[in-house]
Amino acid sequence: MKKTPVPTMRRLPHYLHFLNRQNENGVKRISSTIIANELSLDPTQVRKDLEYTGVKGKPKTGFQVEELIAAIRKFLEWDSPRESVLVGVGNLGRAMLGYERFKNYGLNFIAAFDTDPTKVDSEIYGIKIYGINQIPQLVKEMKIKIGVLTVPANSAQEVVNLLIEGGITAIWNFAPTSVRVPEGVVVENAQFTESLASLSRKLIEANYIIDKK
Amino acid sequence: MKKTPVPTMRRLPHYLHFLNRQNENGVKRISSTIIANELSLDPTQVRKDLEYTGVKGKPKTGFQVEELIAAIRKFLEWDSPRESVLVGVGNLGRAMLGYERFKNYGLNFIAAFDTDPTKVDSEIYGIKIYGINQIPQLVKEMKIKIGVLTVPANSAQEVVNLLIEGGITAIWNFAPTSVRVPEGVVVENAQFTESLASLSRKLIEANYIIDKK
Repeated sequence: MKKTPVPTMRRLPHYLHFLNRQNENGVKRISSTIIANELSLDPTQVRKDLEYTGVKGKPKTGFQVEELIAAIRKFLEWDSPRESVLVGVGNLGRAMLGYERFKNYGLNFIAAFDTDPTKVDSEIYGIKIYGINQIPQLVKEMKIKIGVLTVPANSAQEVVNLLIEGGITAIWNFAPTSVRVPEGVVVENAQFTESLASLSRKLIEANYIIDKK
Repeated sequence: MKKTPVPTMRRLPHYLHFLNRQNENGVKRISSTIIANELSLDPTQVRKDLEYTGVKGKPKTGFQVEELIAAIRKFLEWDSPRESVLVGVGNLGRAMLGYERFKNYGLNFIAAFDTDPTKVDSEIYGIKIYGINQIPQLVKEMKIKIGVLTVPANSAQEVVNLLIEGGITAIWNFAPTSVRVPEGVVVENAQFTESLASLSRKLIEANYIIDKK
């Protein structure tokens, strides 16, 4: 298996969103040039990215939209959501547990954990909340591989250690800090601040251009 | 003013997080090589990125940590948070309004909007919630430039139109859809799915490697 470059991984959902919209509008076939124009990418880049999914466009008619959607979803294994747990049922954790669409993006939450005794043993969106001391045992029993971390920065590492003790191999980290994991465990930091930095700077540079006019 | 490349914009918060941790640990000076190693980047790339902020490292001793932190924050204007509004006080909206740290990242929420009459006129974290029909007038009166969108996909465009009518020039879009804006308005899509795609695929490729061993 050829290793997928991270920028390609991150562009795949953009292709998917665009193709889904085209599909809803009844579009059957689409060229890499149109996809590239719509997403401000280079057509060669688009073709290279999509080749990872195993689908090749045809010279004149391009890609078959439904086939390409299915290929991207299969490539990301979003066609069969994985059982996952979430730790930290604050506002963000609650938002994530309630976001039904995650099932389309490969995540199926089956348990949540929190330290707050008033939350433990209650349910939210049909998902049971357990105490964090139960993480290692329950994660092991349920054979969960993905953990979503929506805890404050100061408890992130402690929770990560518990998840790893339970056998978690992929962590989606929303805590505003980096965490250490042993080799073989995958961490993806979902930093709000990346896109916020981009927004801040674009706003400054756009205003600068307007001021100069 | 030289236009900042988007990848540079997106890396700046990573430098900032790392430098803040170093500063907390009492580190006074740091080299681009150490920064590069820690963040898995090329040292030349690090120097190029940081040059945009106007700070240059010295050949042997590198960067002065506190000075560099201040320069990045100033470059992003995160040293003086902008008054902002949020539309859509669901779970995600609530999480964002309650996230005190946004003040360190340039956002100061001063009003929120929702369609739900049971929420309108109430307050959350000291922030008043108004009806969405009040967006154009209030945004104009308060001279707000940044709007954060945490509404469902099907009402996103309608809300964006109201924000633009009020004079908003930057939109941070958390709705799971793209939105159309007139020229001169900046949109940053904060897609969860980018990092989720990356996590999904890394997990698949890591397992594949383990299976083959």
